[in-house]
Amino acid sequence: MSFERIGSEEIWSGKIATVRVDRVRFEDGEEADREVVAHPGAVGIVAHDGERMYFVRQPREAVGEQSLLELPAGKLEDEEPLETAKRELAEEIGKGAESWQFLTSFWTSPGFADEECHLFLATGLYDHSEDPDENERIEIVTAPLDELDDVIRNCRDSKTLIGLLWFRAFLS
Amino acid sequence: MSFERIGSEEIWSGKIATVRVDRVRFEDGEEADREVVAHPGAVGIVAHDGERMYFVRQPREAVGEQSLLELPAGKLEDEEPLETAKRELAEEIGKGAESWQFLTSFWTSPGFADEECHLFLATGLYDHSEDPDENERIEIVTAPLDELDDVIRNCRDSKTLIGLLWFRAFLS
Repeated sequence: MSFERIGSEEIWSGKIATVRVDRVRFEDGEEADREVVAHPGAVGIVAHDGERMYFVRQPREAVGEQSLLELPAGKLEDEEPLETAKRELAEEIGKGAESWQFLTSFWTSPGFADEECHLFLATGLYDHSEDPDENERIEIVTAPLDELDDVIRNCRDSKTLIGLLWFRAFLS
Repeated sequence: MSFERIGSEEIWSGKIATVRVDRVRFEDGEEADREVVAHPGAVGIVAHDGERMYFVRQPREAVGEQSLLELPAGKLEDEEPLETAKRELAEEIGKGAESWQFLTSFWTSPGFADEECHLFLATGLYDHSEDPDENERIEIVTAPLDELDDVIRNCRDSKTLIGLLWFRAFLS
């Protein structure tokens, strides 16, 4: 069953997301309206130095979390995902990486939102800061690689879970 | 750094999600507005019969996917997540399960949306249908358990990736 988008109307536009209603036509001729929360997309980075993994903790007001543990991450800003990843690693944890490896891409919630998230592995870390421009409430935390399973079991964030579980499955 | 929500205003209300703007106050006294896409929450089910895993394929108009492979899943409707999971397994793939095990819960995109997703493992499957009430465009597909890694590497949906990677890490 295939479909095509035959119309689209923006209903609301905010700082991070916009809401639009798409008109779609299925190959059986049926037409329907679909509400879509549009988002520019994001990256997340599994970063380790061979002994420790690097994370950030920050308040996430949308979900009522006072201090949520997440991969270094950020929104795409008219650039390739790898460039976003390099910028965010420097801004959020003050590191560059000699080696970058693409892991996977996925839709965070494809039933109603078009956010796509791209994950990378960064190794060969070295000090390299860029000015954080968005959020001074970020705390950098590290965890030993041999505590990976504990971090996974306590993790509450989708991109962080996928990044760590992917690393555990195919790269550790 | 802790915060509290001191106000909230609904800006838009749709069929799946609503958008509100929350006023938050941080413990240093700073106040800010935060846009939140509100969602009722969801469940996903890793279901297998010892030989094959069960999935659904459906068009996902929001992300332009003609036929996205996902775990059986659905939105919470004023019920406990396990009840949603049992209902969705019956509606989507026509199965009940003798054994249910909670896997984990996570935020799909905590930077801007409050959707929480709860994952379960269902085993001891038996035929048990309930009327699907929402989407007749769902196709049931199965994959052998020994092709788990191939399914994971081709997967594009967050809850499905987390469910399969969690199963691979801790239960297979």
